[in-house]
Amino acid sequence: MNCGIAIFPSKQVQDAANSYRKRYDPHYNFIQPHLTIREKEEWDEMRLGSAVDRLEVVTRGIAPFEIEFNRFSSFYPVNNVIYLALSDTTNMENLHNAICKDELAETGKTYSYNPHLTIGQQIGDDELHDVLSSLKKNPVDFRSRVDRVHLLYQTENGAWTVYQTFLLRG
Amino acid sequence: MNCGIAIFPSKQVQDAANSYRKRYDPHYNFIQPHLTIREKEEWDEMRLGSAVDRLEVVTRGIAPFEIEFNRFSSFYPVNNVIYLALSDTTNMENLHNAICKDELAETGKTYSYNPHLTIGQQIGDDELHDVLSSLKKNPVDFRSRVDRVHLLYQTENGAWTVYQTFLLRG
Repeated sequence: MNCGIAIFPSKQVQDAANSYRKRYDPHYNFIQPHLTIREKEEWDEMRLGSAVDRLEVVTRGIAPFEIEFNRFSSFYPVNNVIYLALSDTTNMENLHNAICKDELAETGKTYSYNPHLTIGQQIGDDELHDVLSSLKKNPVDFRSRVDRVHLLYQTENGAWTVYQTFLLRG
Repeated sequence: MNCGIAIFPSKQVQDAANSYRKRYDPHYNFIQPHLTIREKEEWDEMRLGSAVDRLEVVTRGIAPFEIEFNRFSSFYPVNNVIYLALSDTTNMENLHNAICKDELAETGKTYSYNPHLTIGQQIGDDELHDVLSSLKKNPVDFRSRVDRVHLLYQTENGAWTVYQTFLLRG
């Protein structure tokens, strides 16, 4: 089954993000607003079990931290995604690097990790430019504490269920 | 914010339930198929924190168990809900009773706890009878292991985010 690792920002950030996602993100109904830590991958039960063991150990050594979203941005022309961007990505990159190594290393990825909260995707080129220039007029100043990560799996309809949470106990 | 406690059955059961929920349950996009342990209630951060402490302690003393869904049933005429029913509700009732007491006691509830997995709700009387008699022709034999409970909160759009999972460690 498809499994992934993500964090959910505070309810305040989720509410703000959903107000945009409702219009621009076809995944709106599949999962709440999140920042992906590890992309989805097909795992069997044994792999899921070893990921749990690994996350249990890794998260013990990571301290909670704050993230700050300060602008709308886009991955265009790599792909037509609009996202809420972080003022400083260091802590999220460190979290990703700590989790996604050894048996949880991501293989075959053609792009480097860029923490972001997607609010729109699969948007046509013209609409993307219109939406993004409109959004960029809005000031963004959201903060959220990151004190846990979520391991999720996907059901056949494309929606995600949380399997287990891991508190950052460092 | 609205908080609740629930369990999610296995992916196999969720997939089966979603095939019905997609048609009959307006909450299909708000949360994955689940069995409610504690109904939603408005909590502040302090209440959420004490619920976490309580769940941490209580779940340590409860052993994982199996549940078996063996039929479709309905709460009609109390309300127009169709659900997957358990062959034996004892373990789920014990789980509910262990969690929903003392500071997590549910007050003002006018009905007793009846564990179920909702697959349809807000259905008109006539349609309910048609759908239920049609569904009852299908044999039901799903099993799922209950080895964790989920504490969730609701965002403003009605969808639910998992805050924390608690493994049954008894």
